[in-house]
Amino acid sequence: MTSLSTPWQLARRAERMNPSVIREILKITERPGVISLAGGLPSPDTFPIEAMREATTRVLRDAPREALQYAASEGYAPLREWVAQHVAEKGVIVDPSQVLITTGSQQGLDLVGKVLIDAGSTIAVEAPTYLGALQAFAPYEPEVVTVACDEHGPLPEGLNAAKGARFLYVLPNFQNPSGRCMGEARRAALTDAARANGLPLVEDNPYGDLWFDAEPPAPLASRWAQGTVYLGSFSKVLAPGLRLGYVIAPQALGPKLLQAKQAADLHTPGFNQRVVHEVIRNGFLDQHVPTIHARYKAHRDAMRGALEAHMPAGCYWTVPSGGMFFWVELPAGVDAVALLPKAVERGMAYVPGAAFFASAPRLNTLRLSFVTVAPDLIERGVAMLAQALKANS
Amino acid sequence: MTSLSTPWQLARRAERMNPSVIREILKITERPGVISLAGGLPSPDTFPIEAMREATTRVLRDAPREALQYAASEGYAPLREWVAQHVAEKGVIVDPSQVLITTGSQQGLDLVGKVLIDAGSTIAVEAPTYLGALQAFAPYEPEVVTVACDEHGPLPEGLNAAKGARFLYVLPNFQNPSGRCMGEARRAALTDAARANGLPLVEDNPYGDLWFDAEPPAPLASRWAQGTVYLGSFSKVLAPGLRLGYVIAPQALGPKLLQAKQAADLHTPGFNQRVVHEVIRNGFLDQHVPTIHARYKAHRDAMRGALEAHMPAGCYWTVPSGGMFFWVELPAGVDAVALLPKAVERGMAYVPGAAFFASAPRLNTLRLSFVTVAPDLIERGVAMLAQALKANS
Repeated sequence: MTSLSTPWQLARRAERMNPSVIREILKITERPGVISLAGGLPSPDTFPIEAMREATTRVLRDAPREALQYAASEGYAPLREWVAQHVAEKGVIVDPSQVLITTGSQQGLDLVGKVLIDAGSTIAVEAPTYLGALQAFAPYEPEVVTVACDEHGPLPEGLNAAKGARFLYVLPNFQNPSGRCMGEARRAALTDAARANGLPLVEDNPYGDLWFDAEPPAPLASRWAQGTVYLGSFSKVLAPGLRLGYVIAPQALGPKLLQAKQAADLHTPGFNQRVVHEVIRNGFLDQHVPTIHARYKAHRDAMRGALEAHMPAGCYWTVPSGGMFFWVELPAGVDAVALLPKAVERGMAYVPGAAFFASAPRLNTLRLSFVTVAPDLIERGVAMLAQALKANS
Repeated sequence: MTSLSTPWQLARRAERMNPSVIREILKITERPGVISLAGGLPSPDTFPIEAMREATTRVLRDAPREALQYAASEGYAPLREWVAQHVAEKGVIVDPSQVLITTGSQQGLDLVGKVLIDAGSTIAVEAPTYLGALQAFAPYEPEVVTVACDEHGPLPEGLNAAKGARFLYVLPNFQNPSGRCMGEARRAALTDAARANGLPLVEDNPYGDLWFDAEPPAPLASRWAQGTVYLGSFSKVLAPGLRLGYVIAPQALGPKLLQAKQAADLHTPGFNQRVVHEVIRNGFLDQHVPTIHARYKAHRDAMRGALEAHMPAGCYWTVPSGGMFFWVELPAGVDAVALLPKAVERGMAYVPGAAFFASAPRLNTLRLSFVTVAPDLIERGVAMLAQALKANS
């Protein structure tokens, strides 16, 4: 191609954008016959198809013109009210005017980045952290620092590394990818340390409702309302294909997030907002979410059993008490990236853990999803992983 | 509020974000009883509600799990194929792989800005231009220059002002706000000049299918494929509440736009994409769009008649041959911003033209939408505008 045929000059930030490692892996591993424990897809068996049918019928009967017209950038008022009430049950007390409906919570991450990150400014993340957040923030060209973490999440004393950061991005409930859930004591200590450091928090909670034994402790946003942006999603409790999430922001940020939202896509599809509100308005989730709990808990148990039965000595994992993922530590020296093709050859796939670190990737880690495939396939997939690992040593 | 209670530091770009002037005006003017010719809302009478009902029923019957699951960031393959065929009929020959489905074409503008604009880099726009595009680009901190325009659009010799610009943003068909449509000769001359200057084009075409007499000439993208990004929308031919648009990019830009899309919202709702594809796959628009033409043409004629009957001497407008807007020039010295409250007092609203200029606003201009309200109300609204204007002089 000659220079005449490509007059385009890319923005500097475009260099920071890369194909999603996970999506590239998924392409390789989605060939038929491969048992994929790689993806983060909710089980389609949990999608409330009949309720969706009834809700779309009602919306298109009762308010078709409103549902199909341009709508407010803030979101559909009754849905915002529902969200405010939903998070109040978790201890996050907000006015519905503080709720911004987004096109999936991924958009919430993009808007937060757009409003808060300058090129060269610092943001802080966990180790490991959600890859999609790193991708959402990267185009705004931050310096990303990692705070020290243990199995409960970020260490309060680790916040020293985040001095002057615009925010700490944290996923306290059944984190993607580690599966860990932050306990009450850590939440209190972390929030206190953040407030003392003047370090704002961006709290992402896509998995909090997917608990198996006990509901997680109250969100960080309930402890430091003025210093926390809270993100939620309908993707894991209803269906991700609707792309519905929300951001709850302190008053200091609300107007700018709204303006960023207007500029980004005018508003989230009003049709989807009304359909989802119609599905959930009369307590549907109170019956529906426990069926997801029961299913995912059985899957979790199947994966735990398979890991215990098959994995060789020197491998470690913590059994998650909710969410969608096991995080596995292989023996020191084993590179999960190099192992992947051998696992795929045997018929299974996972995501190497390295992708989830902003810096200093731990190469001997990997993520397994237990919700997408059936328990008998989980068992076979884990057995194949163990075989690949044993053949490798 | 003490500084302790607001630990947030906004990004510099947040200063560039402002509440949408139009949305603020709409809030004022949407009080009951005001005849609003201000908004850019398609007539809900054109929404294909019955076809939507059937399509949602079929999608939720035939592919509910796929429609509700996470999906490809590129968009739903059959919809991308449909778009490639649709634009081929206009002379834009592309592979479906070059089509990126977006959450409304507003998102296309945001992604284009994200990938192409550096802080301080120059972009060029028409005078007047679409306000939503200015808002989408603003957070990326461009220097915006205006190219000289006449009633046919940008003057080829005006491109000198755009030297070194990352792109010229241009809306050739029934432009929002001016209603003008670029003729064949101007398209040829403008594209030649852009190519000669190495100035890429971002061509926005939300209104091109809304022609009343003859289809507009072929898009700029058909004349300089390697140098043009083309944006399209389903908002004006189906319904805006679905938030479905698309970007067609030359190969040099495709991967970066896709990565920006992934980071922005993972993908546009798959449910919406499948429903729209189900509606349009068998030639629905061939029957449906002509009904919109007939309706909007009658509205256009009503507004033309009302303007001719009521407006005082010294006012000028060009009769649009498609789209949704009349652009009116008031007598020199009249400030349409100052006039607005007086018009609202009399019971009608419009958008002052000043909002649509990146620089050197022409204060004596205003935009009237002829598609949202019924012809008899258009007549009354224009009469009120004329009264306000006469009382003002």
